[in-house]
Amino acid sequence: MSEYDGKNMNAIHVNLGPRSYDIAVVSNEIEPLGAFVRARTARSQLAFIVADSNTVGHAVDVADRLRQAGFKCETAAVPAGEESKCLAQAERLYDRLAELNADRQTLVVAVGGGVVGDLAGFVAATWNRGLPLFMIPTTLLAMVDSSVGGKVGINHPKGKNLIGAFHQPAGVWIDTQYLTTLPDREYLSGLAEVVKYGVILDTEFFGWLEANADAVLNRDPFALQHLIAQSCRLKARIVEQDEREESGLRMVLNYGHTFAHAFEAVSGYGTWLHGEAVAAGMICASRLAERLNLVSAEVTQRQVRLLEKFRLPTAPNEWPIEDLILSMRRDKKALAGTMRFVLPKRIGEVAVVDDVADSAVKEILKLLE
Amino acid sequence: MSEYDGKNMNAIHVNLGPRSYDIAVVSNEIEPLGAFVRARTARSQLAFIVADSNTVGHAVDVADRLRQAGFKCETAAVPAGEESKCLAQAERLYDRLAELNADRQTLVVAVGGGVVGDLAGFVAATWNRGLPLFMIPTTLLAMVDSSVGGKVGINHPKGKNLIGAFHQPAGVWIDTQYLTTLPDREYLSGLAEVVKYGVILDTEFFGWLEANADAVLNRDPFALQHLIAQSCRLKARIVEQDEREESGLRMVLNYGHTFAHAFEAVSGYGTWLHGEAVAAGMICASRLAERLNLVSAEVTQRQVRLLEKFRLPTAPNEWPIEDLILSMRRDKKALAGTMRFVLPKRIGEVAVVDDVADSAVKEILKLLE
Repeated sequence: MSEYDGKNMNAIHVNLGPRSYDIAVVSNEIEPLGAFVRARTARSQLAFIVADSNTVGHAVDVADRLRQAGFKCETAAVPAGEESKCLAQAERLYDRLAELNADRQTLVVAVGGGVVGDLAGFVAATWNRGLPLFMIPTTLLAMVDSSVGGKVGINHPKGKNLIGAFHQPAGVWIDTQYLTTLPDREYLSGLAEVVKYGVILDTEFFGWLEANADAVLNRDPFALQHLIAQSCRLKARIVEQDEREESGLRMVLNYGHTFAHAFEAVSGYGTWLHGEAVAAGMICASRLAERLNLVSAEVTQRQVRLLEKFRLPTAPNEWPIEDLILSMRRDKKALAGTMRFVLPKRIGEVAVVDDVADSAVKEILKLLE
Repeated sequence: MSEYDGKNMNAIHVNLGPRSYDIAVVSNEIEPLGAFVRARTARSQLAFIVADSNTVGHAVDVADRLRQAGFKCETAAVPAGEESKCLAQAERLYDRLAELNADRQTLVVAVGGGVVGDLAGFVAATWNRGLPLFMIPTTLLAMVDSSVGGKVGINHPKGKNLIGAFHQPAGVWIDTQYLTTLPDREYLSGLAEVVKYGVILDTEFFGWLEANADAVLNRDPFALQHLIAQSCRLKARIVEQDEREESGLRMVLNYGHTFAHAFEAVSGYGTWLHGEAVAAGMICASRLAERLNLVSAEVTQRQVRLLEKFRLPTAPNEWPIEDLILSMRRDKKALAGTMRFVLPKRIGEVAVVDDVADSAVKEILKLLE
């Protein structure tokens, strides 16, 4: 990345052997984008840019830059929202690629949040057995979560992400400028996953978030660059060791998520944003760790204070406890009467605990009623 | 494979690091199938068996064996024929997997020819980001070609295999018994790819085919076991070095295919079977090599004699030469006025020749009119 690191650019190298790639993190600096993409896709002539109705403006800017770098650009827009992560929209994109006579070098560029990245990424993974993919995430959640790891996919009526693949991008371009127009609730929701990285992997980063919470809330560009780069770096270190979720190591990224998935399922998807559910889920998990004498109450309290500062929920709403337990048991395919959880040992380290009794989980949920 | 090699079993190990797998080649011996599959999919509980209307009988036998090995079995059948390699059939199979609450360990078993293998393989590659896949090919072409290499996919109205992935199976089980009921024309068509392996990689194997042509035509089980095992072994040696068609090495497998694709496209798919087009395509390529002084006429003559013995065509029908050239140029995305071909240097070795003039190709096609 030496060619671009002069001007306020953070770069993260994700080391996956032949599938390695770079993530550039910039602030309001689209000019070097063309060269950054071209350096990673030397043989591509056509760039197929996928956006949604909220990000078509950004897609136009991206197309301008790519044209200057010698790409022929075509843009497709899908409706904004989770409903677009479906086989029918994938088919529409396949049809466009066919019309455009896309070849094996055609570059797919996803400009948008997680929905656009997952959908366009799936199409890239499966057209002609895999096209190069470039991600330009425009939401905080997509920047710190789906940019790293190569998971792409669409939903099936029976469940999220059931149809998908692992397909590492050729590069990721993150501009904090996109966050200036992101609605508050969506921005804050993305911070939950950022806090998660601190709890599971990096006590110093957690301390930095506490110390710089106001700058983070004000979306200060320098704070954002650090926060995004560090989150990507931490996730990359995990993904590098367990690319396809085989060794179990990647499981630590699920801290807070067993509870969160249950909150989302029982409340109906869309009631809470994903990050809101994760915030409350982390506090439930931390209280469970307290109950199992893994951590002191102070570990939970630091998380509560930080999440409250970020205006995120720290307890579930009054959903029926039996329904939540049922949903968690289904999620985890656990042995009768026990469940597996990712639990904190301290700020900066978690453990996977296998045989947590249902009764302990119930008590935590009751406490929070 | 030591556990099964006692009784007339050939085994080929395809060495692809963490994606390595074994191909068993047997004759009328289904009894060890359960143990063979179980040894490679220790954690699977459910086997989802996909067949077509011609192979449901075989699927029933397979299910019996897998049940004895402790699998719960469910079977789905798609209509026989190329039309089933489509997104609508993939969606039907996704729906079945969802109904069955398939998990990440659910085994997909493809029992059939190339259509079933490619379709079921694509569904396996994309459900839950990749399920284990077991191939039980029932046509000669599927046994010697699509069992090795991990290419799976479906067709798009604009072209074959445009939607697909690389997904290596967990194992392949080939029983020559399935070939006893295969229609003559389909069986003979599969032999074209077998002859191809001899020409591109193995002069001794080509000699064996010449010497044992009658046994091959009589579908002698021992001859079939050798022929299939050696074809898989030869293809495996190539795929091992170029798993995802990146280095260009895998291109040698396309001997005869540039002409063949043009014959299929210009005549309308289905007029000739794929192997028939490949047979005529190899002779065109060999004559082109003669013209370029790469080989003597004898190299072509040996191929002609063997293919004629196998009742395969050795020249195209009277299709318009300009249409064929146009189709080949599109297929190869070549530079103006020249094309790339895989051409024989002798029986057992080919070269990739980059700048073959259109005029030379035209003359070959005219000669054969």
